[in-house]
Amino acid sequence: MERLLNGPTGHKSKAQRFRGLPHPEPAKCGVYLSEMIQSKACFFTRNITDPGAAFEYAMFINIKEQKCVCIFQAGPLLEGAPGHVHGGAIAAVIDTVIAAHAAVHCGPVMTANFNINYRSPIPLGSTVLLESCVDKKEGRKIFLSCKVTSTDGSKVHTETTALFLTINASNLVQGVRHKHGSLPPEATTSE
Amino acid sequence: MERLLNGPTGHKSKAQRFRGLPHPEPAKCGVYLSEMIQSKACFFTRNITDPGAAFEYAMFINIKEQKCVCIFQAGPLLEGAPGHVHGGAIAAVIDTVIAAHAAVHCGPVMTANFNINYRSPIPLGSTVLLESCVDKKEGRKIFLSCKVTSTDGSKVHTETTALFLTINASNLVQGVRHKHGSLPPEATTSE
Repeated sequence: MERLLNGPTGHKSKAQRFRGLPHPEPAKCGVYLSEMIQSKACFFTRNITDPGAAFEYAMFINIKEQKCVCIFQAGPLLEGAPGHVHGGAIAAVIDTVIAAHAAVHCGPVMTANFNINYRSPIPLGSTVLLESCVDKKEGRKIFLSCKVTSTDGSKVHTETTALFLTINASNLVQGVRHKHGSLPPEATTSE
Repeated sequence: MERLLNGPTGHKSKAQRFRGLPHPEPAKCGVYLSEMIQSKACFFTRNITDPGAAFEYAMFINIKEQKCVCIFQAGPLLEGAPGHVHGGAIAAVIDTVIAAHAAVHCGPVMTANFNINYRSPIPLGSTVLLESCVDKKEGRKIFLSCKVTSTDGSKVHTETTALFLTINASNLVQGVRHKHGSLPPEATTSE
């Protein structure tokens, strides 16, 4: 993070404009199928607590520039092709970062579209940099893009564009149990 | 799976044309950063062994029709928005299924592009159906699409198109350790 968080001495550094984003808290609300499911629910990219085994990441946001950066180390439990990170694990951490970024700007959101170009595979165990930008806002829609590179920025691993929709948070916090297929209409993410 | 695997008595059922795909084996080969990473490596969607806690799925393939179906139950450790499956977890299981499907037809592949439209959220703990089709093959490229629906097919959760590239498997099995940034060129997935 040095190149992003530590600027030259003598003038305002980027470090002063980026602040850390907290880890997601365990959900204490929501529309669940059963109390058993609710009692065991855990945020996906934090479901393995063994340090360094799976998703290790920290996010930093710059509200003014509408940018978010994340350092991500892909642990050995994220394997896809032998020796490399699973494409779905890469998608998962990108989705997590840009959803958190979108939520800071627009409140609760859900993914509507997600388009990833995989440029080069990520070796298992390596550390990479994610940089997310807000490209456009249109009503309930927020468009973002995210690039995953080596930590020095020299090698591009993936390029992503995404569309998120703001949602009515009350549907997620009212605690009413709905059966599958009868979710509140505001919770749908159709474009 | 009944509607797909059990046809009417008296004529050839779909069950006779679909066969199960095995679970991925732990990698015994690959280009690893270190022996520690290699010794702990685990296929991403099988990294939690507690039954029903995370990714529970079984895949069935029909070679002749170039179709693959998968039953997927999303356990409580896959949460994103409270009460719902994380968009990245959905992407992960779709990527797993279509990559396995592509590999059956073309040998070893890696994801080059992945485009998901999220139509309606999946309640945590519910069971859904994935249906993958091979749309086109062009040289090293294989284009597939995948729809995630409720098990009766009445509700669409996601629609995905994907592009995979065949790769030279020898780069993954030679067991030579490369440093990050010096992967063999044949392993890259640039379009």
